[in-house]
Amino acid sequence: MDMLIFELDKNTSKPLYEQLYLGIKNAIISKRIEVGAKLPSKRKLADFLNISQTTIEIAYAQLLAEGYITSKPRVGFFVEAIDDLPYVQKESVLDPVVPVLKQKFNIDFHPGKIDLSGFPFSTWRKYAKNIFDEQYKELLLTGHPQGEYELRTEIAKYVFQSRGVLCSPEQIVIGSGTEQLLPMITQLFDPLSEYAIENPGYKTVNRILKHHNRTIYPIQVDDEGLRITDLEQTNANIVYVTPSHQFPTGAVLSATRRSQLLNWAAQQTNRYIIEDDYDSEFRYLGKPISSLQGLDKNEKVIYMSTFTKSLMPSLRVAYFVLPNSLLSQYHKIFTYYTSTVPRFDQHILANFMRDGHFAKHLNKMRKSYKKKHDRMTETLETYYPGIPISGEHAGMNVVISVPNKISEIQLKEKASEHGIGVYPLSDYMITPIDHQTPQFLLGFGGLEIESIDDAIHKLMSIWNIERANPSN
Amino acid sequence: MDMLIFELDKNTSKPLYEQLYLGIKNAIISKRIEVGAKLPSKRKLADFLNISQTTIEIAYAQLLAEGYITSKPRVGFFVEAIDDLPYVQKESVLDPVVPVLKQKFNIDFHPGKIDLSGFPFSTWRKYAKNIFDEQYKELLLTGHPQGEYELRTEIAKYVFQSRGVLCSPEQIVIGSGTEQLLPMITQLFDPLSEYAIENPGYKTVNRILKHHNRTIYPIQVDDEGLRITDLEQTNANIVYVTPSHQFPTGAVLSATRRSQLLNWAAQQTNRYIIEDDYDSEFRYLGKPISSLQGLDKNEKVIYMSTFTKSLMPSLRVAYFVLPNSLLSQYHKIFTYYTSTVPRFDQHILANFMRDGHFAKHLNKMRKSYKKKHDRMTETLETYYPGIPISGEHAGMNVVISVPNKISEIQLKEKASEHGIGVYPLSDYMITPIDHQTPQFLLGFGGLEIESIDDAIHKLMSIWNIERANPSN
Repeated sequence: MDMLIFELDKNTSKPLYEQLYLGIKNAIISKRIEVGAKLPSKRKLADFLNISQTTIEIAYAQLLAEGYITSKPRVGFFVEAIDDLPYVQKESVLDPVVPVLKQKFNIDFHPGKIDLSGFPFSTWRKYAKNIFDEQYKELLLTGHPQGEYELRTEIAKYVFQSRGVLCSPEQIVIGSGTEQLLPMITQLFDPLSEYAIENPGYKTVNRILKHHNRTIYPIQVDDEGLRITDLEQTNANIVYVTPSHQFPTGAVLSATRRSQLLNWAAQQTNRYIIEDDYDSEFRYLGKPISSLQGLDKNEKVIYMSTFTKSLMPSLRVAYFVLPNSLLSQYHKIFTYYTSTVPRFDQHILANFMRDGHFAKHLNKMRKSYKKKHDRMTETLETYYPGIPISGEHAGMNVVISVPNKISEIQLKEKASEHGIGVYPLSDYMITPIDHQTPQFLLGFGGLEIESIDDAIHKLMSIWNIERANPSN
Repeated sequence: MDMLIFELDKNTSKPLYEQLYLGIKNAIISKRIEVGAKLPSKRKLADFLNISQTTIEIAYAQLLAEGYITSKPRVGFFVEAIDDLPYVQKESVLDPVVPVLKQKFNIDFHPGKIDLSGFPFSTWRKYAKNIFDEQYKELLLTGHPQGEYELRTEIAKYVFQSRGVLCSPEQIVIGSGTEQLLPMITQLFDPLSEYAIENPGYKTVNRILKHHNRTIYPIQVDDEGLRITDLEQTNANIVYVTPSHQFPTGAVLSATRRSQLLNWAAQQTNRYIIEDDYDSEFRYLGKPISSLQGLDKNEKVIYMSTFTKSLMPSLRVAYFVLPNSLLSQYHKIFTYYTSTVPRFDQHILANFMRDGHFAKHLNKMRKSYKKKHDRMTETLETYYPGIPISGEHAGMNVVISVPNKISEIQLKEKASEHGIGVYPLSDYMITPIDHQTPQFLLGFGGLEIESIDDAIHKLMSIWNIERANPSN
């Protein structure tokens, strides 16, 4: 047996089985042993090399597992025919690469920015500390596909109290965000369903529906929200709306239209309304408007919301509430589904809500955002009375019209050159809409209250908009 | 103005603006004020009711927001025409409902069960405590769409050292699991791509591809893994494989076939291999087999893996490694994507890995699973020598063939009647495969080591399989 020309070294840290495995493997690769050759039996080889049979066993098992040899029961081990193995160490590319940074603005009016200063880290940390404990080790396993029952219970209580949404925890499905939940919702409807969405609106919704090859009708929005008469002229049977605070215009769907929309849905069995209530927590004047779900008598509304604005975007917790009419369809499709939200996070949040910290946090943040909102609108109204504001008194941005000869794109570029991020309304248009006056979303959520005045004045001066003297 | 017949009560806790809002709203709903009627100006009403103008302002704003009135600039506020508002308090369904429990077995041989006793809760808790801190408040905001750079760096190091996978953090995308990552991967390929998957195999993969209307070829698996010659006879250009430990048979893709498979992919530009390395951490004999990705010279392999088995299923962290050939396509499609994994969890895991706790945990769990594996195979070999075992020496289950006259379904039912959960191989078949002998997956991960002997003996006695006397 000329295969055994390699020597085993008992005085190195390399285990004997690995030396044996490598020796035989190299002999096979370099064709020093022929294809089909029979290897010595484990017992014989152990005797010959004066090592234990277990060592041989491990080496042979490894060669077997990698396909270098085969085993014929009660006969022995044989060398396999192999193509040249293309194992080549590629050049290591593990050197740290500096990630590409997004453009950072000195002043950013992005409507998605939130206030980071108010987050109750110590309270959250306390709940995290409590839940990562041996006594909750069952939480290491996969949980309920709809999300933890405890969190769904807290959500059911919360949406009832704050939004008039009536549901049981059984109707709630928790997921990682709109991008993950909306495709689930579309699976509940006939695949031939056609969708109406708001224009301007939330572009991600358009992207998701397009990706799933759904027919989409962009419906225009005015200061009463979605135009229901336009909706009625389409073949859409599913409509996605943000009634309590239209994104991005800030319009509130009027009572008349709410009623019309619910009537529209009630007219056909395959019609449904997806109500996205993404930032309803933040209203600064009067009482919050009750949800469509709360008004609906016909099980036609899928209510969805998120903790992105109310708590933090990075937690990735959102949810939808199914009407009873869609529950059995949901159970049929999503039996095998695994929830995407980590169970421990769900329990931290549930306990945080149960003990009243969420309500407290919301009240605190509402006050903080209201101050920023008031400061921004006051500054605009006082010094720039020629600039109409809309979509105010809610959310984290207002919309301004800029009476200017130059286009939205040029205004945006001018601001950008000076380190200011502004977001034209046309960025949110699903299909272009004619509008004479450039319009911009001005977010205040991420700005320090002390910096708002200066930020507005700086932007207006860049845009050559004259500052009025309020004492006149 | 007969609308003002309601009275304001200054001695209640109900704010005046709310009394005013409700009074006017009820008058509109009950049609006591006509559609089109003009409301008194704020100043006039404030004078008349002897309350502040701000109170009136809030009430009017609320009525405006809800669409009960409209505002004509410089003219005044007018009552809107509304359909009957269908706001009806639905019956509360908030009573706690007991969630339906899944069937619980006294003994569960489920292959997906993991050992809960070894999780290092105190270490994990320490990292959680550290990260939920004011100084990391930026982590409240949305992170990188591919996942945190720190975690991707740790994953790149780990897959290189343990699996021979060569990549930079830029090639890694972190997500919540196969169900979430696989649809992303399919979006990188031509929508007309056709898919080959293993049979028996991971049914979720079949479900996902079916849901996306992809053509699927189930390819049979033998004791060397996927049959490449069968693959070559299909039109498939994408293949999904579990080469290091085929799910569920436990077969290792042989060296010959690895080489054949890589050659197959290299032959056409649109061919790709999705390598799912879901439980490669757990091999109990010899060295782990290096990944296909490490062997590939042609940028044809998308490597994917998960922390489900190696850490916990409920964390929902998995990842894929893109070949450079697919990076630009990825960036084109997923610019706007938001990662589904909470940022704080990503940092807890990254720090845990960085400090060597993950490697330590894996070694500990490998030992624990090896003991369970050895106990199960020894018991089977010693007392039931007539039962062939396959797919052993890795993962968390073995596969046994049961020489019995009755069918898999009947054997499963018999076990179930006695509180024992067993999982027939046919449960994992994508399309039926003829097999004379009933085969079952026997998972050992979730069993206590002391209970394994009894569990096996109990199952065999239920199946009327005689126990051999090893002293003979």
